Amino acid sequence: MFLKNTWYVGCTPNEFADKPLGRQICGEKMVFYRGPEGRVAAVEDFCPHRGAPLSLGYVEDGLLVCGYHGLKMGSDGKTAEMPGQRVRGFPCIKNFPAVERYGFVWVWPGDAALADPELIPVPEWADNPDWAYGGGLYHINCDYRLMIDNLMDLTHETYVHSTSIGQPEIDEAPVATEVNGDEVITSRYMENITAPPFWRMALKANNLADDVPVDRWQICRFTPPSHVMIEVGVAHAGHGGYDAPDEHKAASTVVDFITPETETSHWYFWGMARKFKPQDTNLTAQIREGQGKIFGEDLDMLEQQQQNLLDYPERKLLKLNIDAGGVQSRRILDRLLKAEQEQNEAASGN
Amino acid sequence: MFLKNTWYVGCTPNEFADKPLGRQICGEKMVFYRGPEGRVAAVEDFCPHRGAPLSLGYVEDGLLVCGYHGLKMGSDGKTAEMPGQRVRGFPCIKNFPAVERYGFVWVWPGDAALADPELIPVPEWADNPDWAYGGGLYHINCDYRLMIDNLMDLTHETYVHSTSIGQPEIDEAPVATEVNGDEVITSRYMENITAPPFWRMALKANNLADDVPVDRWQICRFTPPSHVMIEVGVAHAGHGGYDAPDEHKAASTVVDFITPETETSHWYFWGMARKFKPQDTNLTAQIREGQGKIFGEDLDMLEQQQQNLLDYPERKLLKLNIDAGGVQSRRILDRLLKAEQEQNEAASGN
Amino acid sequence: MFLKNTWYVGCTPNEFADKPLGRQICGEKMVFYRGPEGRVAAVEDFCPHRGAPLSLGYVEDGLLVCGYHGLKMGSDGKTAEMPGQRVRGFPCIKNFPAVERYGFVWVWPGDAALADPELIPVPEWADNPDWAYGGGLYHINCDYRLMIDNLMDLTHETYVHSTSIGQPEIDEAPVATEVNGDEVITSRYMENITAPPFWRMALKANNLADDVPVDRWQICRFTPPSHVMIEVGVAHAGHGGYDAPDEHKAASTVVDFITPETETSHWYFWGMARKFKPQDTNLTAQIREGQGKIFGEDLDMLEQQQQNLLDYPERKLLKLNIDAGGVQSRRILDRLLKAEQEQNEAASGN
Repeated sequence: MFLKNTWYVGCTPNEFADKPLGRQICGEKMVFYRGPEGRVAAVEDFCPHRGAPLSLGYVEDGLLVCGYHGLKMGSDGKTAEMPGQRVRGFPCIKNFPAVERYGFVWVWPGDAALADPELIPVPEWADNPDWAYGGGLYHINCDYRLMIDNLMDLTHETYVHSTSIGQPEIDEAPVATEVNGDEVITSRYMENITAPPFWRMALKANNLADDVPVDRWQICRFTPPSHVMIEVGVAHAGHGGYDAPDEHKAASTVVDFITPETETSHWYFWGMARKFKPQDTNLTAQIREGQGKIFGEDLDMLEQQQQNLLDYPERKLLKLNIDAGGVQSRRILDRLLKAEQEQNEAASGN
Repeated sequence: MFLKNTWYVGCTPNEFADKPLGRQICGEKMVFYRGPEGRVAAVEDFCPHRGAPLSLGYVEDGLLVCGYHGLKMGSDGKTAEMPGQRVRGFPCIKNFPAVERYGFVWVWPGDAALADPELIPVPEWADNPDWAYGGGLYHINCDYRLMIDNLMDLTHETYVHSTSIGQPEIDEAPVATEVNGDEVITSRYMENITAPPFWRMALKANNLADDVPVDRWQICRFTPPSHVMIEVGVAHAGHGGYDAPDEHKAASTVVDFITPETETSHWYFWGMARKFKPQDTNLTAQIREGQGKIFGEDLDMLEQQQQNLLDYPERKLLKLNIDAGGVQSRRILDRLLKAEQEQNEAASGN
Repeated sequence: MFLKNTWYVGCTPNEFADKPLGRQICGEKMVFYRGPEGRVAAVEDFCPHRGAPLSLGYVEDGLLVCGYHGLKMGSDGKTAEMPGQRVRGFPCIKNFPAVERYGFVWVWPGDAALADPELIPVPEWADNPDWAYGGGLYHINCDYRLMIDNLMDLTHETYVHSTSIGQPEIDEAPVATEVNGDEVITSRYMENITAPPFWRMALKANNLADDVPVDRWQICRFTPPSHVMIEVGVAHAGHGGYDAPDEHKAASTVVDFITPETETSHWYFWGMARKFKPQDTNLTAQIREGQGKIFGEDLDMLEQQQQNLLDYPERKLLKLNIDAGGVQSRRILDRLLKAEQEQNEAASGN
């Protein structure tokens, strides 16, 4: 079950720069392309003529042309024209509200009438020259909620990412979990510790000493449906930690947009927005490469965890204090899912 | 559902030149090999001894020897002998009538008692020195009827094969569909047009000017169970088009023998028989290569169309005028399938 | 259905030398590793915390550390510790009795309380300086009982292994099948024949003429759950055959430990123990390579046989005299399975 009346990151614009992009989101097969006036559009990936995938076609004058027999689909899901045919009575396909913003394409897989672009979250780092962003995309064969769990409990860094961002002090520092309406925040502060390799690199890149004690923080914020923004950073110890002035620290936000594909697979848009040396594109590339490697370490674990859960469906998992972030996030999702179902039932007149 | 009391192209002789060939046809796993006196034979690919596939064995004195424990199977499906065993009481396996003709092996997957070689179609170009033939084989993961649809509506050439045989004039020319008993014919004539790349090549190969206006024709003939012969060609404009004398045209027949494997996969024997320069083997190879490339363009479209139809089983497809060829062909198949079922029920005494 | 209250070969020690080994045995997903004091241990491959596979973790001080969040599992299936957690109430996972012996790790996938290491079979060749052993492992996608059938009827050598150990005389020699309690023995003796290539190599390696007539023997011994030991060899003709003194023969034991993975797949630990030139490690390597090649010839046959049996579940297979070894072995398995089920029911108080 997924929330469908909400915005997900569907893709990035480069993915459909050359040709339409077919992608399944929340169980809906859709195709992304540049429609009228170059604006992004998304419709079902199903030609009403013979069921061919429209993603194998091409765009002409803002219309999506089916690559099989030339039906021209409008971004509203209505057939605009077809050679030699009257298309008025052709059945419509779904269109999915899609908005290009902050370097992503946001898509609303549910009821189009309810889609409000104002609901698209505004990342702090977006359109802000003090910040730089780099990121990538992984396809992962597991329930998207296992990824939320993963990101809301960073003790896994000590084990999964032991050579880059992990360190025993993460396990040792107490974690606090807080729920504010639909937002869940788990935070952890470590004082006077040695920076792990990734952060030594970041300090150095920011022209700061990398061999002195630091304070480190991790503040994970879940917001529905499946966005996790994580404030992370280190400051030279004794300057205020998280609140230290910029010249004593390297601070950034791990960006995680998690988009369900099926019940047991998802698209993972990962990235890092940093608040230091924003003009340094080499540094952006370097961080992107390092982060891609680090986040790739989770894939095997998550996919085999999923397989285990499918093999042992009756087993209850533990819900420890470190799991509170994921547990609370799922609770919010369950509540919103129930509300969406009731809304759907009301809409259908039952 | 497939027609089973009918002849299909099962394979080509080169496919079992070195060793037996295992292949599934209409849901029946069978093995092709050279039996007594070198005549082609086909029996179930299942050794009655322990269920091993006979296709992993070899042929000795016209008997198919199981490669596991040496049972020797006759082309009638009866075990002929086995080292140290009396084989009289061994259960029989099915044998499938198989006939080598016109460069193909024709097989009858249904009731062997009804198989009549006289029913094998006689292609106009077969055993005729005025014609040359070249072709190949693709395995495609879609219902064989999607391939019939494909071939009975050539407007797809404009989109799928836009760089070789497609041109907008195909879409623009009216199509006529006619049903004659069990035969469906769709035809289209285009006058005074520019020849597309494939046909310019063909004109040139036939020592005809390739830069003058031509008349072009496409006459698709479906006959059950799943053969589609397509007369295609171009003639220099003003000489009678389809009826022009041979010296003004390049004419050939696209040959399509479509053999179901399962409900959602088939074997596609494609080829081209041409009525010009029949001795030119280089030209045969050149056409074969070009056609193989062109027909390969359909695979992805057909397999993804199949996937879409499986994902959305409740959706009705459109039946436009351009689809009439496929629609009528399926109607004939449905009628014959019903007749075959009634025949089977009558035979079983119900 | 598998016997579970019995010892199987689970793996060889080299397979978990560097990191824990995840493997499914008799439907149980387990992980092998070196636990306390370096002794082999096996527990379920499922972390009670969040269901991650423990086989992706590592060993520390004899504890298996989960690679996801650091839970430390004991070899008894009880969580020993976890950073920042009280683990007393954590649910247990299964532990599987495991014993390292004779170069293999033996595992008991059923009720641990019943596991008695005294029940582990003692191979004649184990820990005996007169013998040398070499072997390998194949994963095969078929019911483990098809492999028992394979090994209890060596007439297949004539067909599957015609270029190495097969010869028509195997088919021609009478086979005797005997049942002694839970043991099944099929034996075959061939006199005054030409040695096939593998045995000519063995004779030569043992400094014996390879171009003289030999007597050959094959004595297959099945013992539950799925071990097949095969005494094989050749002696120069006229010296007593199987009973000939060592200086006239090359004799060895084909070792087959067959471990079910699922209903339709198994792990096949194959090898050869020989009673000549035991110090000659080059010869061990040479035999191992040859045997690996020979046994690899069975894979395709067995996997396609399995597929055929799945496709035609209603067909009865023949049970000829040559099949008696497999048939009797299955009868013993069926009897023991029934006994195990009754034992389980009794234990559960029904």
